[in-house]
Amino acid sequence: MSVKAEQRSVSEVSVIQIMPSWSSGPSKTAILTFIDEVCKEGGESYVRPEDRIAVFDNDGTLWAEQPIYFQALYAFDRVKEMAPQHPEWKEREPFRSVLAGDLKKALSGGEKSLLEIVKVTHSGMTTEEFAASVRKWIDSAKHPQTGVPIKEMVYQPMLELLDTMRKWGFKTYIVSGGGIDFMRVFSEEVYGIPPEQVIGSSVEVKFELRDGVPVIVREPKVGFIDDKEGKPVGIHTHIGKRPIAAFGNSDGDLQMLQWTAAGDGKRLCVYIHHTDAEREWAYDRDSHIGKLDKGLDEAKAKGWTVVDMKEEWNKIFK
Amino acid sequence: MSVKAEQRSVSEVSVIQIMPSWSSGPSKTAILTFIDEVCKEGGESYVRPEDRIAVFDNDGTLWAEQPIYFQALYAFDRVKEMAPQHPEWKEREPFRSVLAGDLKKALSGGEKSLLEIVKVTHSGMTTEEFAASVRKWIDSAKHPQTGVPIKEMVYQPMLELLDTMRKWGFKTYIVSGGGIDFMRVFSEEVYGIPPEQVIGSSVEVKFELRDGVPVIVREPKVGFIDDKEGKPVGIHTHIGKRPIAAFGNSDGDLQMLQWTAAGDGKRLCVYIHHTDAEREWAYDRDSHIGKLDKGLDEAKAKGWTVVDMKEEWNKIFK
Repeated sequence: MSVKAEQRSVSEVSVIQIMPSWSSGPSKTAILTFIDEVCKEGGESYVRPEDRIAVFDNDGTLWAEQPIYFQALYAFDRVKEMAPQHPEWKEREPFRSVLAGDLKKALSGGEKSLLEIVKVTHSGMTTEEFAASVRKWIDSAKHPQTGVPIKEMVYQPMLELLDTMRKWGFKTYIVSGGGIDFMRVFSEEVYGIPPEQVIGSSVEVKFELRDGVPVIVREPKVGFIDDKEGKPVGIHTHIGKRPIAAFGNSDGDLQMLQWTAAGDGKRLCVYIHHTDAEREWAYDRDSHIGKLDKGLDEAKAKGWTVVDMKEEWNKIFK
Repeated sequence: MSVKAEQRSVSEVSVIQIMPSWSSGPSKTAILTFIDEVCKEGGESYVRPEDRIAVFDNDGTLWAEQPIYFQALYAFDRVKEMAPQHPEWKEREPFRSVLAGDLKKALSGGEKSLLEIVKVTHSGMTTEEFAASVRKWIDSAKHPQTGVPIKEMVYQPMLELLDTMRKWGFKTYIVSGGGIDFMRVFSEEVYGIPPEQVIGSSVEVKFELRDGVPVIVREPKVGFIDDKEGKPVGIHTHIGKRPIAAFGNSDGDLQMLQWTAAGDGKRLCVYIHHTDAEREWAYDRDSHIGKLDKGLDEAKAKGWTVVDMKEEWNKIFK
């Protein structure tokens, strides 16, 4: 699709040409109809380009999240890297189990264990040191089951969707429970989303002068949690406008979709439903990761778009 | 200046045409030289457009701040508006003095009194109700001494500077101790800066469903303070990149300028020095508002640009 497409309305472009990894199902129709309507100058659903804000969850929406959030894999690798300086970890959970390779046991304490690991492995350094560490990791890390580089475990249909929305003047944001400074390292390269359009969870940071050199230091203290009720709050804090389109895949995205849906005028709320056990993973109401239960009910009740990955995506990964 | 100017380098455009409210002094030269160097493709100081981040303090840098921060005037008007629902304020400081019109006494408790007033007057409503209240105020409020509408108490030379930097591909941000949601109401109209490029102080906010309708509610609790050490933190949180140009007018901006200056490559750090008692106000080291003391010393020591308002600005207000 040439850049000139921006000048045309979506309906003037062959639907086959746009987002080729999407089959001609109800989701693709709903998305393209929405884009067409809000971009039609003079139309009753017209939205000015500056208000075309679209927000995307990351884990399970833009890239995969099974068998565990990829950022946890980074944290585990950091535990191993840091272990020589922490002999006490040999006796202390959840670190002991991470070092023994027993991830199931390491995470048996649930979210609390994961936060404990993240706090320790994501702090005690400057923001620049952290970015360098993530950069090194993301450039080499491979998925534990598929062996594919982590940064290629991204959904091709979503890359095409991001690209299409941007071509029609949307500003695309990531709004994820993942770490804001973690995602910012690769968001531009992987998704074409610049750091300033990434919203996520954070540890507390502190400015200080070290021998006269200003640094921002990451503290071992959880700051903002950009999940569930936190997502509309993160959106408000960072953007200050209500999105007109929102994409998620779990109950953690429900409040973001509710907040988006409740604005005036045309809205697009989309759930990506993981239905393809062969090419990806199939999970929803009972999953330990990316649980989609209340969200699925609300999507049905409110007529939101639910993407059936198995039926509607010709291709899954990049 | 036509939009085509973007294609030319700054040095190809007549200096008289650019930023006409600036006299041909050292500050204008320093600013235009910087823009020219970082935009010169192939030059050793070239910076990609996506990294051309420029940050601006608001009070005292983009608009005036004497005799008191304008947001405090809004807060005082809110106290009067809310007084009928708060009979206890008649006996309670600092509200008693605000209602009696004795602002000096109201603020005798310093920053703590002001925060107490802001907390109460800026909370207990949804974000949309707050925005509507600020909108109503900013559209009618006048300066207590000049009688000029508050939103015209902005510096014409800075408007021209913002415009020039944007034409050469800079992304301009406000980074202010003022309230983020207060400034966002008028930042686009007054400065051409969209809400998502405004960084400021905040109260805590909370997402909730009210009879099924999602709202974001402002709590009477101070959240983030975007001043001094908070400014580099706010920049990091919202932008995730280090600016290459920073503009301030007080010691509250010092850390933002230090953080900007300490990056690699060409940097521009500018202090606006209030030297014009006739056309504006003259104040620096001993001022109760916008105190510029350590910052002035550091600017001199490090060779930062200090704008002499009296000598270098042909015109002050819009």
